[in-house]
Amino acid sequence: MIPPDHPRYRSLMTRERLARCAKKGIVTLEGLTAHGRGEAFDYLIGERTTGSALLAEQTAAAFLLAAHQPVISVNGNTAALAAPEIADLQRASGALVEVNLFHRTEKRMRSIEQLLRDAGVDVLSGEAEQLLLLSHDRAWCRRNGIFSADVVLVPLEDGDRCEALVRMGKTVVVIDLNPLSRTARTATLTIVDELTRALPNITRACVDLSLTERDGLLASFDNNYLLKDAIREMTARLSHVLD
Amino acid sequence: MIPPDHPRYRSLMTRERLARCAKKGIVTLEGLTAHGRGEAFDYLIGERTTGSALLAEQTAAAFLLAAHQPVISVNGNTAALAAPEIADLQRASGALVEVNLFHRTEKRMRSIEQLLRDAGVDVLSGEAEQLLLLSHDRAWCRRNGIFSADVVLVPLEDGDRCEALVRMGKTVVVIDLNPLSRTARTATLTIVDELTRALPNITRACVDLSLTERDGLLASFDNNYLLKDAIREMTARLSHVLD
Repeated sequence: MIPPDHPRYRSLMTRERLARCAKKGIVTLEGLTAHGRGEAFDYLIGERTTGSALLAEQTAAAFLLAAHQPVISVNGNTAALAAPEIADLQRASGALVEVNLFHRTEKRMRSIEQLLRDAGVDVLSGEAEQLLLLSHDRAWCRRNGIFSADVVLVPLEDGDRCEALVRMGKTVVVIDLNPLSRTARTATLTIVDELTRALPNITRACVDLSLTERDGLLASFDNNYLLKDAIREMTARLSHVLD
Repeated sequence: MIPPDHPRYRSLMTRERLARCAKKGIVTLEGLTAHGRGEAFDYLIGERTTGSALLAEQTAAAFLLAAHQPVISVNGNTAALAAPEIADLQRASGALVEVNLFHRTEKRMRSIEQLLRDAGVDVLSGEAEQLLLLSHDRAWCRRNGIFSADVVLVPLEDGDRCEALVRMGKTVVVIDLNPLSRTARTATLTIVDELTRALPNITRACVDLSLTERDGLLASFDNNYLLKDAIREMTARLSHVLD
């Protein structure tokens, strides 16, 4: 049992939750390692939403609200960590939710879709086809989902799939704690924040943004600035220790 | 299958090896997450042994050679990643090797000890007792091993146990890719390098160091400098991206 007053309570509870989901096959062993990488970068931004991350989250809301067909692409780690937050964002944004897995089996697909439905998510069903320009399992998506989306929010995406979606002309919004990753640098918009902090902020902005604010965010958005500011935050935190 | 010319071949093979060991119960699910954190920091130091890390590795060799009873404390991740390198270091340094686990079961102890023996390690056997000033499983060690050691090399240690060993008056040498961690900041000597790069460098120095070089390293060693230089390397790499 982890005591609730432990300084790393939240992080340790999250880790336990992932380990539980790994035992059920929802999270892969590779997914656990990926989560650890994220933890390290989260530590470097101080385990908080920075000013530029909040701006990125509001801009993500603006993209989702302005889209013709927004889709949220969910993988195993996202479902394990944030199924209720995905349900809230879906209600606020009207986006479709589609499950897409790097390590895809029918059994995993079904357990993840069930976990999401249990949390109140309306999960896109229907036949998936190999429609993306990628090898193997990662090419799968649904014709009426990601394939025809104009804006795709992909929390915790891998670099190859992010690139494929951008090449298809889509606006790709990613949540990635590593501002140096290929995903972070390829995406249209990169949110450098932890998933369960980022999603509620996007949801709140979906509810709160006026039409004028939305247009202002879309007109002024600069992903290069967002990435640089995240790196600046990390560098500052590291340098601070040197003093 | 990962192609050997993949830019991240080594890192991906390591990850696969850990996943295999996790399936056998040698590596815990928490161990996989911890490995991911290490990967992120390794990325930040450029996945190479820095000059100050090599100095730390030579100093570690000096401590082991000068010790009355040096002990290498091995956990699940260390055994999974570097059993042959531990065998080499044991031969070069004359250190005892003792298995110590955060998540301890008799079955895990036995499989890890067997894995090490298969790689040529002479593993300390005999009854373990709860001798460290720590709660639960982490307090276990052997009276004729870590308990009576003057120098302990603990790759990938947790902060609490590192503190307990330092409080007992031991020289604690750790290998930790996160220079900000409690382990890194509590240890007598901190090697900020990846395990399978660090161990062969310590082994080589055990063979090569003259008595004068050894004494020089011990007289001039400054862990604060080693930590600061690791942080400086990471900051430089992050800042470089901003240019």
